[in-house]
Amino acid sequence: MSRGLFFLIAGPAGVGKTTLLKRFVLEEKGLVKAVSVTTRAPRPGEVDGAAYFFWDEPRFKAAVARGEFLEHALVHGNHYGTPARFVAEQLAAGTDVVKDIDVQGVQQIRSRPEYRGPASVAVFVMPPSHEELVRRLRGRGSEDEQSFMIRLRTAEAEMVRCGEYEYVVVNDTLDAALARLKAIRLAEHCRQRVGAV
Amino acid sequence: MSRGLFFLIAGPAGVGKTTLLKRFVLEEKGLVKAVSVTTRAPRPGEVDGAAYFFWDEPRFKAAVARGEFLEHALVHGNHYGTPARFVAEQLAAGTDVVKDIDVQGVQQIRSRPEYRGPASVAVFVMPPSHEELVRRLRGRGSEDEQSFMIRLRTAEAEMVRCGEYEYVVVNDTLDAALARLKAIRLAEHCRQRVGAV
Repeated sequence: MSRGLFFLIAGPAGVGKTTLLKRFVLEEKGLVKAVSVTTRAPRPGEVDGAAYFFWDEPRFKAAVARGEFLEHALVHGNHYGTPARFVAEQLAAGTDVVKDIDVQGVQQIRSRPEYRGPASVAVFVMPPSHEELVRRLRGRGSEDEQSFMIRLRTAEAEMVRCGEYEYVVVNDTLDAALARLKAIRLAEHCRQRVGAV
Repeated sequence: MSRGLFFLIAGPAGVGKTTLLKRFVLEEKGLVKAVSVTTRAPRPGEVDGAAYFFWDEPRFKAAVARGEFLEHALVHGNHYGTPARFVAEQLAAGTDVVKDIDVQGVQQIRSRPEYRGPASVAVFVMPPSHEELVRRLRGRGSEDEQSFMIRLRTAEAEMVRCGEYEYVVVNDTLDAALARLKAIRLAEHCRQRVGAV
């Protein structure tokens, strides 16, 4: 049996990654999501192990110290991390793994020898236009002008780095973007992985 | 508008390439076949410009002398060649081009700077098993044992070189192989072409 493929999906806030990945995992066979761990408190209705595993800070820091995360980061005072073992086990069992991740996380994961180069597939989800990105970020509604500008500048800074990814998927419509993501998965299973683990 | 992609499809005789490519071109938009030129006589029912353009030998040799072929070869006393201008024009117009080609032809085309590396996409169509290859080659029926063995050894020698291709598509069923080919095309349009023309 051949190893599973590890898909790292990044893209600016507001691009629709969460909805896209939900359908991707739901509609494809042999593909699971790598669920992150966080120290932030669960929001009402959030179930442990669905969007996140909710851990307290001592447990998180102990796991960091033991090197149990593929990547981890501190965002707005909360820790987030991707457990390494789950990913490794799924891939070894021949199951594909997909991870919703930020630009820094991709870099951290790909700095590890086991996920370098062709051993992981990095996809950047792109808004169809700058106007649409602005519209989607504004659509979130709950923010003041300063928070909006910070999110917009962050998104722009991330988009500049899309050249580091194997694929760019434009999210013009959910169906079209999903078809592209599925095609990338099927094509990558036919692709010859020179130098892969 | 972005350039079209040039798909080079190789694979051993008997693997089902011709049927596969017929449906690929028929069912996909913005994709044309690069029709070869040959000096062999048309078989009954063969129309000029469909499977081949039928030229006489002086015309063929003059075109070779003028460098008008992307690749050309002498097979069983007949010349075959791929006109360069048609491919270049279609790609420049943003149309994808697919070419049914042999292992030597792929090498010739990719030795040209304009179609090197990521500027063309090479796909090797593989039989699902050695037994199935033997069965399909025997199924052609019209051959004596010696011709069969020559074709089998040629096929085996070609399959050894499948590592030179970006993709391997197993032709277990026509529908599955076609889905893989279409996925490769869509994925390649999302793929970032570092170092491409």
